[in-house]
Amino acid sequence: MTRQVLFEQIISKRSYLCVGLDTDIHKIPKHLRDEEDPVFEFNKAIIDATADYCVAYKPNIAFYEAMGAQGWLSLQKTLDYIPDTHFTIADAKRGDIGNTSNLYARAFFDNMDFDSVTVAPYMGEDSVKPFMEFDGKWVILLALTSNKGSSDFQFIQDSNDKKPLYEKVMRTASTWGTPENLMFVTGATHPEKFSELRIIAPDNFFLVPGIGAQGGDLQAVSHYGMNDHVGLLVNSSRGIIYAGQGADFADRSKEAAKILQSEMSQILESRFNL
Amino acid sequence: MTRQVLFEQIISKRSYLCVGLDTDIHKIPKHLRDEEDPVFEFNKAIIDATADYCVAYKPNIAFYEAMGAQGWLSLQKTLDYIPDTHFTIADAKRGDIGNTSNLYARAFFDNMDFDSVTVAPYMGEDSVKPFMEFDGKWVILLALTSNKGSSDFQFIQDSNDKKPLYEKVMRTASTWGTPENLMFVTGATHPEKFSELRIIAPDNFFLVPGIGAQGGDLQAVSHYGMNDHVGLLVNSSRGIIYAGQGADFADRSKEAAKILQSEMSQILESRFNL
Repeated sequence: MTRQVLFEQIISKRSYLCVGLDTDIHKIPKHLRDEEDPVFEFNKAIIDATADYCVAYKPNIAFYEAMGAQGWLSLQKTLDYIPDTHFTIADAKRGDIGNTSNLYARAFFDNMDFDSVTVAPYMGEDSVKPFMEFDGKWVILLALTSNKGSSDFQFIQDSNDKKPLYEKVMRTASTWGTPENLMFVTGATHPEKFSELRIIAPDNFFLVPGIGAQGGDLQAVSHYGMNDHVGLLVNSSRGIIYAGQGADFADRSKEAAKILQSEMSQILESRFNL
Repeated sequence: MTRQVLFEQIISKRSYLCVGLDTDIHKIPKHLRDEEDPVFEFNKAIIDATADYCVAYKPNIAFYEAMGAQGWLSLQKTLDYIPDTHFTIADAKRGDIGNTSNLYARAFFDNMDFDSVTVAPYMGEDSVKPFMEFDGKWVILLALTSNKGSSDFQFIQDSNDKKPLYEKVMRTASTWGTPENLMFVTGATHPEKFSELRIIAPDNFFLVPGIGAQGGDLQAVSHYGMNDHVGLLVNSSRGIIYAGQGADFADRSKEAAKILQSEMSQILESRFNL
């Protein structure tokens, strides 16, 4: 999916919501656990309930990998079920030496047909570029993550220019890719940073985790982070997929997604004069 | 496996060789490709041929993941086949927010029974510690990697104390774990750094990629990097497993492993007065 098509999807649906399919077999409603593939049945119901309110789906690969070979089958079925209108993200945080990163890229782009994969930057250029060599596919590079541990290394300032590591990562990676194949992960738990992040990478999309269950930062993230292609995919995982626990879990997810979409709709209408 | 048992294995076998099972279906000998599980048959032959000359096996997970669900079955069978005397490393370079890293840890330590997993440090403490919560299991944290891209970010100097990022990673992670559950990846392509690395982390084992096909650095790495528990696992992947291409590929691998083991034996005998 191109940046322009993603932008048009966002405008058309009045939503830049990404639903995180972090599906834990131990957390899905009891009545689904007797199905042949409970994880897929759960995801299918969530996708049916939320597709009108989001533009992207992001399965976190750990949840599938934890189930071994069966997990990969559930993941493949889930990916096949996601409508072509939706941008798909393999949240895998991979990264290895060149020939090995190429294999990870093949796993997610060839064997499966994800639009994008999240990549960790620590090993540098030859660990990231192999993911950029697939036409029409995207790298989403970790920059400033949403978790507590983001403060351990990502804010270390380079003695040469006093710039923090996350900025070095964004500026350096911007010489490897373009806004047409490179996005960054920027956590909503650092809303005060978004105007600075937008200066560092004016045109790239940001994938923004940390909103939803935590709530509250969507306005700030949108105010400071939006560009003229919107440039934001705001993710909610647990806040949506575990909104309910009973037989009506899908309806609850739909309501949770709709609440976020509705807030996004107001922001977009105001910003883009819709 | 404890550090003491690993040390005893090394002394007993006169080897600190780790064989990297980076098994690419397109590179294994033609006569194996008609087998039901060619990757496992190849690994089985390599393990039979090399077990006497090494103390550890390291499948790089990308090679298995690139084959989808079948790859995970081949990986499980390979792991089951490795003798209990050998230390096993899931070279996965994983790392995510806390609850997600816990799932990756469960995948490699519970579902499968690896002794250790390689972990990427970028996301900090809560992305690494969940791997340390499994009794008797090890984290092998990326510090100074062997690839060209290692120079992009790992040498960035902190403006506070002028220390490079890889040193910050090693010193910070040493407050999360101990030499009994934490090793570091330190590439053999930086042999001049090993005396410094040994000062930063005197007691931790180092997993050392970058030797073998490239050759030549084993003496320097061993001279500067060895501690009184040996403290080194030197990996060779392609140099051993693709030493031959024909029907005698396993014999060729055995010879390649034996050459490295023989060099290691001399170093150990001299250093430990064996």
